[in-house]
Amino acid sequence: MKILDGKCVAENISKSFVERIKKCNEKPQIAVLSLNPDDASRIYIKRIEKNCKEYEIGLKLLEGNSEEEFIDNFYKVRDDEEITGVMFQQPLPQKLNNLIELLPANKDVEGIGTKNMGKILLGKEDSIIPCTSRAVIELINYYNIDLTGKKVVLVGRSNIVGKPLIPQLLKNDATLTICHSKTKNIFEETKNADIVIMAIGKANFLKKDAIKDGAILIDVGINYKDGRIVGDIDFEDIKEKAAMCTPVPGGIGKITNAILIDNIIKSKEIVNYGIGSFRNSK
Amino acid sequence: MKILDGKCVAENISKSFVERIKKCNEKPQIAVLSLNPDDASRIYIKRIEKNCKEYEIGLKLLEGNSEEEFIDNFYKVRDDEEITGVMFQQPLPQKLNNLIELLPANKDVEGIGTKNMGKILLGKEDSIIPCTSRAVIELINYYNIDLTGKKVVLVGRSNIVGKPLIPQLLKNDATLTICHSKTKNIFEETKNADIVIMAIGKANFLKKDAIKDGAILIDVGINYKDGRIVGDIDFEDIKEKAAMCTPVPGGIGKITNAILIDNIIKSKEIVNYGIGSFRNSK
Repeated sequence: MKILDGKCVAENISKSFVERIKKCNEKPQIAVLSLNPDDASRIYIKRIEKNCKEYEIGLKLLEGNSEEEFIDNFYKVRDDEEITGVMFQQPLPQKLNNLIELLPANKDVEGIGTKNMGKILLGKEDSIIPCTSRAVIELINYYNIDLTGKKVVLVGRSNIVGKPLIPQLLKNDATLTICHSKTKNIFEETKNADIVIMAIGKANFLKKDAIKDGAILIDVGINYKDGRIVGDIDFEDIKEKAAMCTPVPGGIGKITNAILIDNIIKSKEIVNYGIGSFRNSK
Repeated sequence: MKILDGKCVAENISKSFVERIKKCNEKPQIAVLSLNPDDASRIYIKRIEKNCKEYEIGLKLLEGNSEEEFIDNFYKVRDDEEITGVMFQQPLPQKLNNLIELLPANKDVEGIGTKNMGKILLGKEDSIIPCTSRAVIELINYYNIDLTGKKVVLVGRSNIVGKPLIPQLLKNDATLTICHSKTKNIFEETKNADIVIMAIGKANFLKKDAIKDGAILIDVGINYKDGRIVGDIDFEDIKEKAAMCTPVPGGIGKITNAILIDNIIKSKEIVNYGIGSFRNSK
């Protein structure tokens, strides 16, 4: 079985960053907004900080100590033209998450607002696409996996992974089946699939009995089991039957960091070049 | 076989209109913008006019004789607070169709802009949903067809029908397969389906050999063949094998007119009551 290595895909994506940032008139600059961040949040933010530093992307950290302060910070960075992207550090109350809707699409660098979701559904070129869902497509493209007419089974319909993946897979001409918690027999579907994408969040859920010989498997799951990180696919079990599979860790997760940087640069490029927009029409 | 009658569904939807319009402070008022309309366009506009008149919905017809005039008309109705909905009469050049993106989501009463598409993908309550795709769901609900865990095959992935149908079918817990022109063997998929939704635009395409006994069939197709209007399903052929089917004409098409009026009222209701919005937060 061939291992679909996320590291190679991530490195390939990162190759363009330095040159693209050079081409922007000013460097991209993002703001990360948090509310009373705990230690786990701070570790995550540190990682973004490190990635931004590597490419000299500006980063403004704004810690709010109350909802009011968070909202004030939000309006400041929304209206600041030097800030080209805004991210919210989770968890946040729904009321604050709704503020994402008040950003212009290009500043929503995680691609989670309705404006970007609509662009994704309609296949617009200037979509900013949620990182994990785009990571799946980047992996498929990197390994020249042709989806045309293939039976693809996607397990999971979350707003952040499954739903934005659907139009991207259809754009690549897959014949697509979407399964979820209410599907009667998920394995009956996966058994007939040329390609299975697992994004359901259940440790080692997919085993060899539920795939066909030579299937291509992509694992989006990140689960903690017995002190280890494992995916939704039982990697050891499917090894002799599948043709290709992503490992966890070292698969899709490895690519998402690179995609976030790519989205941050793209958001600046959209402002600079106006890809697909109707600007200056009047 | 039971005939799924669009007329009953449409009448059921229309029942609420008078009372809902009465509850709005001011009546809804829409603007229909066209560019050099031909006779066919005028016939279509007449039908909208008649429907609006029935419920005393205001209607402003703005015929542009040049692109510049169309654009001027657009900005006027966009910024006019008394106009609660805007529709574009097709065909239009892409450049003019892109203007839809400059409307607030609630004024896009056909639900075709990216803002509404994003709301639909995320399942938001204040989505305005493209009429034909919503007609399918209204029919399913009216006849108490439970999609939970059912195998639904949707044939067609257009921006106006197939794509907006996907999240609506998933919201109803269908296990959903999407087929299209690049699918290797559409009939292999439809044969296993509990419910088939045809939206591919090929006259009498689906025949009895391609369905299972007792299948439920929904026909979105409107095709002209030998001087008659026929659907994508060969109604005469499947009659003895399917459990239920929509006729063409008299099925989904009958419902879409009612949905358009419903969308027009809903757009006014969203402004009045602010369903799901983040208004007045600051």
